[in-house]
Order: sequence, then structure tokens, then C-alpha cells
Amino acid sequence: MSRLALSDADKEARDWFIETAKARNCSTTVDAMGNIFAVRPGRRQGPPTFAGSHLDTQPAGGRYDGILGVTSGIEMIQVLDDHWVETEFPVGVVNWTNEEGARFPISMLASGVWAGEIPLSHAHELREVGHGNAGATVASELARIGYLGSTPCSHEATPMAAHFELHIEQGPTLESTSRKVGIVHGAQAYRWFTIEVTGRAAHTGATSFAHRADALLAAARMVSYARAAAEKHGALASTGIMNVEPGSTNTVPGHVKFSLDVRAAKDHIVDAVEEELRNAFSAIAKGEMPSGVGMMQDAEKGKPCIVEWTTDSNSPAIDFHEDCISCVRKSAEATVGDETDLTMDMRSGAGHDSVYASRQCPTSMIFVPCKDGVSHNPEEYTAPEDCAIGAQVLLGAVLRFDRL
Amino acid sequence: MSRLALSDADKEARDWFIETAKARNCSTTVDAMGNIFAVRPGRRQGPPTFAGSHLDTQPAGGRYDGILGVTSGIEMIQVLDDHWVETEFPVGVVNWTNEEGARFPISMLASGVWAGEIPLSHAHELREVGHGNAGATVASELARIGYLGSTPCSHEATPMAAHFELHIEQGPTLESTSRKVGIVHGAQAYRWFTIEVTGRAAHTGATSFAHRADALLAAARMVSYARAAAEKHGALASTGIMNVEPGSTNTVPGHVKFSLDVRAAKDHIVDAVEEELRNAFSAIAKGEMPSGVGMMQDAEKGKPCIVEWTTDSNSPAIDFHEDCISCVRKSAEATVGDETDLTMDMRSGAGHDSVYASRQCPTSMIFVPCKDGVSHNPEEYTAPEDCAIGAQVLLGAVLRFDRL
Ligand SMILES: NC(=O)NCCC(=O)O
Ligand SMILES: NC(=O)NCCC(=O)O
Repeated sequence: MSRLALSDADKEARDWFIETAKARNCSTTVDAMGNIFAVRPGRRQGPPTFAGSHLDTQPAGGRYDGILGVTSGIEMIQVLDDHWVETEFPVGVVNWTNEEGARFPISMLASGVWAGEIPLSHAHELREVGHGNAGATVASELARIGYLGSTPCSHEATPMAAHFELHIEQGPTLESTSRKVGIVHGAQAYRWFTIEVTGRAAHTGATSFAHRADALLAAARMVSYARAAAEKHGALASTGIMNVEPGSTNTVPGHVKFSLDVRAAKDHIVDAVEEELRNAFSAIAKGEMPSGVGMMQDAEKGKPCIVEWTTDSNSPAIDFHEDCISCVRKSAEATVGDETDLTMDMRSGAGHDSVYASRQCPTSMIFVPCKDGVSHNPEEYTAPEDCAIGAQVLLGAVLRFDRL
Repeated sequence: MSRLALSDADKEARDWFIETAKARNCSTTVDAMGNIFAVRPGRRQGPPTFAGSHLDTQPAGGRYDGILGVTSGIEMIQVLDDHWVETEFPVGVVNWTNEEGARFPISMLASGVWAGEIPLSHAHELREVGHGNAGATVASELARIGYLGSTPCSHEATPMAAHFELHIEQGPTLESTSRKVGIVHGAQAYRWFTIEVTGRAAHTGATSFAHRADALLAAARMVSYARAAAEKHGALASTGIMNVEPGSTNTVPGHVKFSLDVRAAKDHIVDAVEEELRNAFSAIAKGEMPSGVGMMQDAEKGKPCIVEWTTDSNSPAIDFHEDCISCVRKSAEATVGDETDLTMDMRSGAGHDSVYASRQCPTSMIFVPCKDGVSHNPEEYTAPEDCAIGAQVLLGAVLRFDRL
């Protein structure tokens, strides 16, 4: 699946979402970030209880990440209709814009604006990755595909009683322990950076190591170092994007730009990893190997590079709401039995729109297993029966919260 | 300067070369690789003594690398004309196609075909880098810009009595020792590879180190390792191109492709570096740190990646011809004085068309200093006086060989 946020393919999925919701007599609202809210009326007026996730994907992503949460929300509306169920308050389904952060490099972008954590203007001006200043912005793409809504993007304009999100686990824990449902208590912290290393382009054949300022060699050492340092702190560090310039076999790279994604259970661990890496990267840029991870000093030291950091986004660790967690637990037990080993309490390694939603309303999540724990990969797979279990748990959690 | 081989900008430079040579009553020939030979008649018939180099550049290159050798050849023709000099045999100027190997990834491509070292069909089918299978080929671009000549590309169709090449040093030795002329005895060996590392794309937040097959982490370690291993062998190893897929901040890269350029004074040293790196890269791909360069084992070992090598080109070490070296030495002494410290015997770190020319005719080269030893960089600079000295030495070397 390749459905980057605000692409033509994303527009098609959005059109489908709105048509399907309308066919089920839901009202639909599009806000200034292109978030789409479909609402089914209840017995009484009031903020709806939402099921939600996202329809955008990675450039080469899977068919479940995000999508399962939205389609199960639509399924929930359909089941309520088919069984003539009246809820106490309205219930709804939300499709959040640019959750992946793959095309526009802040993840959970539009739920972040809704929660008041990311300024609308900053989000609107964000440019797509890989196109420099020529890249389209969020605002220009929202307008182009006709999803720049007139409703303000905020939890005040579109309040929620609660937010429930069904998602594939994206990791191997449920599958490897033969669990069917993860009851998600929160999500780990993460922070994204862009690191730029500037050296000097030079001839690979005529320039000795001593005479080089090799931006790629420095960047390669930083990537290796980040892995080792993160492991030491019980954190994760990953580089997914790397651009090397000028990009010629016989030219020592003069400039390298790469992404750095640091994650840990606690904010202070992310802080500690960041601090260590800022120091270590400065040392590596100067050709000095930081101690403690077994990198050897160069016999013939090169010339220094310059390293610059930009913090692109920050998502602190979050704990979900007790009431919502309890609704998920009861619904899961009703679905797979309460005397079984089929459920599991866990925390999310990935970020989700629920992280931002939980800043403004009670929230929790439901995980279902995925094959080999693989996500952000076309091989992503969750069996239909497992999707059905997840959808059933989602429905039950929303209804339980509505009664509450 | 950005004048990639067979681009529109290259066509303009070629047109200028032909017009200028014709205006000086040279005959011009274009061969099947787009090499352009301009010949000024001598008193007698026979293979001309050539001055030559290339007009193509790196994507962000300098104004001297290659260009100085061709424009000084044109200047030579002009000076001979202005002074009514008759040579014994014809003299000529050659502009070789795709010397840089930047657009089409084999350096000295067309002199290699001329010398019979690279098959014409292989050269014609070569695709430009960075465009996958959609990229233009050498043959299609030659045809497009009108430089697919009808003369066969070979030393038999276009024989040379000798080949002299004036070039900037592209390294710091002449400048740092206050020399004006390098008398070049030969060039070091080099070999180019493309290395592909295949792991598995996965979510950066939900995938533990143990569960990852991180193609970029492996590639980063290979780049670091290659530097250390090359240094140990007294060789050079450099990576100038690196493509990371799928290229998203929160996706562990599943596939990385990078260039590797290994150089050394002797062929057997390049062999030894290659052998060591083949073994080490296989170990790194498996998550095992090869010993001897101070890389630490991972506490939490990841899943294995696959590493594949392609050898793109091979240029053995070469010694130039005694007669040509002697012509350069005498011409240099006549230009800067024979009692001075202004000349220096040296070998080339870079490859040059002279490397292939020397397979089929007596050859040598003349180096002039360049600022800070920087090349393959827009900052490349050689003072006008130094260019003039180089052109004077070139002229004198060609005339001396002609007399010989
Ligand atoms: N679930 C998911 O893939 N979210 C994207 C944000 C993240 O990188 O964790
Ligand atoms: N002189 C020069 O830049 N040649 C390109 C071939 C090489 O990489 O050495």
C-alpha cells in the first residue's frame, strides 16, 4: 500500500469514507487540517464517543496500519444500524490526516493540531520530504484535493467524549505469546531530529584520509554510535532517511542529511540519549571517537565536519485513561473470554493519534497481532479473524463508554 | 560547474570545441562513443601526437578538472598557427566522453572503449545513475545530442603517436611543497563496486533491535569499516553514493545501495582490501563485528541482512612511457628552469583518460597545483599563471615528442 497523506490516492480513500458514512446517515465534518469526523446521532446531544485512526500509509506500507482502525469504525456504525441500536450520546468515526509523518515529516500531525499541541500555521506550512523548497505544503495539498475544511481544527470546535483506536500491534509480542488482544495503557516517548553534516566535497582518488572532511563517513559513524548508545540506555534510535551530496562515486561527500528517531518508555531517557548523542556527534564530526562503544581512533585523522541538529517533533510518553482502559478490558473479556490467556496489558512502541487525543479526552487503544511483528512494510498482515476480534472489542468499548 | 556527460551543456561545450578547431583548419572526427578528435596536419602523414582530456564534469564540479587539458590543447593549436610552426607529423586535441563516471558510472569510459578495454556494447548500454531502469543510456544520449559518430571507437580507427594530458593535481602535494609542475609517472589502481544490503523494512518504534534487519545500520558499519581497513592496508576506500529505501523517518530501512571506490598504489593491495571487505561485510550483515577495527559486538543482536557485490569497473595501476615522461621533464625544465625546485616527479591518485590511452600509445601527464588540493568541488581553483605554465609545458612536450 502506498497512500501518502493528501495524495490523489488519499483523496480517493477519503471520498469513500465520506460516501460510506453518509450512506449510513452520519453527518460528516471536515476541519482545517482535513480531519474527517463522521457522527451517528444518539438519544441525547453531547460530544460523541469516537473510534478513529488514519487512512494514510508509509511510501511502501501495509494494508492494516491505521486503516484497520478506520474501517472498523465504519463497521461499528454499520453494526449499530443493522441492529437498530440507539446509543445514549452520539458515536463517531474519525480519519486523522498525515498520521504517518512519512510525506509531511511530523507524525500524528493533524491530531496534534486538534489537541492544540501543534500550531495550525506550522502544520499548514510543512513541506513534503525529499523535494526541498519545491515541495508541496500541507495547505496546498489540502486545497488541491478539496479537503481544506471550514471547521476550525480544534478539540473545542469538535469535542470528543472519548477516543478509542484499534490498531495492529506493529511488533511481535502478541503473536509470539499467542495473544489475541492487547489492552493498551499508554505509549512510549519519541523525538525526531534532522541531522546535517557538512564536510568538504573532494576527489576520492587524490585526497588522502588526512585531507578529507568526509560527511558520509561521519554520518555513518553517528548512525552506528546512536544504535549502541540507545541500547545502553534501554532506548531505540533509528535512521530511516539519508541524503548524500553531491552523490558521485568518486567524490567524497560534502554534505549529508539524515533523520534520527529516538524512543524510550520515559521522557527522561529520551533526554539522556539526546544529550549523549549531541556530545558524541560533535566529537565524531571532529574525528574523535567517543569512548564506550568500542570505536577506534583513526590513525590518520581527517579534517573536521560541522554537525547541526533540528528537532522536528517531540511526543512525550503518555498514559491512557483508566475508564477507557477498563472499557477495553471488559469488551475484550466479553469477546475472547475472561478466563483465557488471550489478552495482554501492554504499552505502544509506536505513536498513534490516540496519543494526542488523550491530551483532550479520555482515550485508550486496542492492539491485535500482526504477522512476524512486521509493519511499515508491504508484507504487513493480520488474519481476517483477528481483525474481526479487534473490531468487536472496539465496538464493545465504545458502547461501554457511551453507557458510562 | 555542472556539465554532466552528454547533457545539453556538454553538447554546447562540444559544439564550441569543434567550431574552434575548424576555425583553426583542423579536421575533426567524432567516433561511436562521441570522442572528438581535432587534427592539425604536419609535414608528413602518420598518427598524430595528441593533447587530450575531457570536458565533462562532476554534478557539482570545478572549472579545471579535464577542461584545462582540452582548452590547453586548443591553445596549443592556436600558438602553432600564430607562429607558423610546422610539425613533423600531425598533432591533435582529443575530448574524451564521460571521463568522470559521474553520470554514467564507469570513469574514463570512452577512452576505455578506444583502448579496447571496455566493449562498445557495454558502454552504449550503460544507464545514468539515480534513475533506475528509466534512466537514459549512453547510446540514447549520444544520439539525442547528435554525437553518435560514424567512425568506430578504437585505437585502430584513430591511432595516436602519443597522448599527453595536462591536468590539475586534484590533491595538495604540489601546492603544499610550492611546486609548479608535476611530472607524472603513472597512476594508482582503483576498482568500483556497488554494494546492496537487504534487510527488512519495519516500524522504528515497535521493533526492538533484536527483531530488526536494519539495512542502513549494516551499511553504515560497512562504510566505517572500509575506511579503517583501507587505512590499515595503505589504501583508500570511499563511498560517494548511498540510496536508502523506503526512506521514511519511522521505517527501519529495508534496502540500501551504496558505491565503494577502493584505490591503492598496487593492484595486489586493492585485491587485499577487496578480500578483507568481502569477508567483513558478510560478517557485518550477520550482525557480527569483525575484529581489528575496534567495533563492539551488539548486546542485542539483530536479524541478518543480505549483502551483494557488483564490480562496476577496474582500473589497474599503470606506468607511463619513459619517452613521454622525458618529453614532459625537458619541457618543464625549459619552462620553469632546470636548476629550480619547481618540478616534482609524482604519481596520480585519480584516474585519467591517459590511463587507457597508455595501453595503446606512449603517454604521460603534466600536473599543475590546485588550491587546497580541492577537486570535484565548485571551489576548485588554479591560478591563471599556473594554467599558463601547464599549457606551455604541454605544448613543449608535444613538440618534443613530434621531433622524436
Ligand atoms: N502507528 C504508526 O505507525 N504511527 C506512526 C508514528 C510513529 O512513528 O510511531
Ligand atoms: N581525474 C578525475 O577526476 N577522474 C575521474 C576518474 C577517477 O575517479 O579517478
